[in-house]
Amino acid sequence: MRAYALLGGPKEEWPTDIKEKFYQAKAQHDFIIGVDRGSLLLEEMQIIPDLAIGDFDSLKPPELELIEKNVPDIRYSNPIKDLTDSELMLQATFEDYQVKSLTILGATGGRLDHFLVNLMMLLNPAVTNYAEKITLIDKQNLLRFYLPGKNIVPRQKGYSYFGVVTLSPVSNLSIEGARYSLSQFSSTFPRAFSSNEFLTGSQSFNLSFDQGLVVVIFSKDIDRFHNI
Amino acid sequence: MRAYALLGGPKEEWPTDIKEKFYQAKAQHDFIIGVDRGSLLLEEMQIIPDLAIGDFDSLKPPELELIEKNVPDIRYSNPIKDLTDSELMLQATFEDYQVKSLTILGATGGRLDHFLVNLMMLLNPAVTNYAEKITLIDKQNLLRFYLPGKNIVPRQKGYSYFGVVTLSPVSNLSIEGARYSLSQFSSTFPRAFSSNEFLTGSQSFNLSFDQGLVVVIFSKDIDRFHNI
Repeated sequence: MRAYALLGGPKEEWPTDIKEKFYQAKAQHDFIIGVDRGSLLLEEMQIIPDLAIGDFDSLKPPELELIEKNVPDIRYSNPIKDLTDSELMLQATFEDYQVKSLTILGATGGRLDHFLVNLMMLLNPAVTNYAEKITLIDKQNLLRFYLPGKNIVPRQKGYSYFGVVTLSPVSNLSIEGARYSLSQFSSTFPRAFSSNEFLTGSQSFNLSFDQGLVVVIFSKDIDRFHNI
Repeated sequence: MRAYALLGGPKEEWPTDIKEKFYQAKAQHDFIIGVDRGSLLLEEMQIIPDLAIGDFDSLKPPELELIEKNVPDIRYSNPIKDLTDSELMLQATFEDYQVKSLTILGATGGRLDHFLVNLMMLLNPAVTNYAEKITLIDKQNLLRFYLPGKNIVPRQKGYSYFGVVTLSPVSNLSIEGARYSLSQFSSTFPRAFSSNEFLTGSQSFNLSFDQGLVVVIFSKDIDRFHNI
């Protein structure tokens, strides 16, 4: 089973085809998750999530009532907690519902501490192993997470650039078969290698490392003022 | 001497008063820096930067010529390099020009690998010591960086929330005098504590830790569709 989650990030950073994505997911009986305000935003699109997670403290009482009336599985989180809403979402999704892949939307833009919660959640050893099953998408970026080993990273249609960002200390990081190569790079602190590109005609590049968590950020140029 | 730098992030994430900020800075003879496309964006505002840094590979030849004609100090970086454009900017600004504080604009939005380069640059030990002199501002967020010790974090006018994000392993992190407290928290991996608030009437909170780099992200709710 595939899963799609909507978080509470601002609509202007959503992919332009987000409604079609969720309608298609619902039609295919994929698993739909709303995190905090994302649950309400789904209901506004006439999509009832299968699972809602959050402390919901930004919702007005009638908004929360709507979710409580419709959503079959609701998990209430505590603002003071060991796991963030996003980490709780990963545990519920992968452990209780055993989904095979998870696409996360609404994770970027707006308040940057919220985005960093979503970007950094996979550093928590309790959920790191789900990294390779997760894709994060907004209007201009697509993020895939990678664990140590030899990885073949496929080109993502429509995205011209990619950056390789180590979210942790990393050892022997190599990038092969891309415009800018990197050989056996090690660092005790995170590094971002931005603005790389696939070779013309190439459908993938090789990404290998021995230790750490790496995110590949695919991006494209967009006309932001006319695309909202 | 104070410094203001403009990076190449999308205009829609700029603070609404960015032009006034730069005109006032110029009038006060503050130091103005353009990083890569930010140099051109400054010239479009009729501001000639004192220093321009970048590989400028996203600029057309006449755009680069305009910068080369006007800007007194230009540093050309290499896309394959040990220090990113942002790190080079910090070195030049604090070492060659000995500025006392640096406000960075245009660092957020758009391609997320670019934002992460800017967020993570201070983890490089070559420039970490400048952390407390740096403020990063966009339309909705204000970021301040903190080094180990006992820090008093002042309220920032107009920002209702703050998040505390450890960008590195951290030890004995405590937050006191805020809505959500934290006591002697240690972690081997970065963590984001989002959506905290100042106590009513309080002008600061206490942030202490023994090891690591911490960013405090002040944020506010904005009506994003009507504020562009």
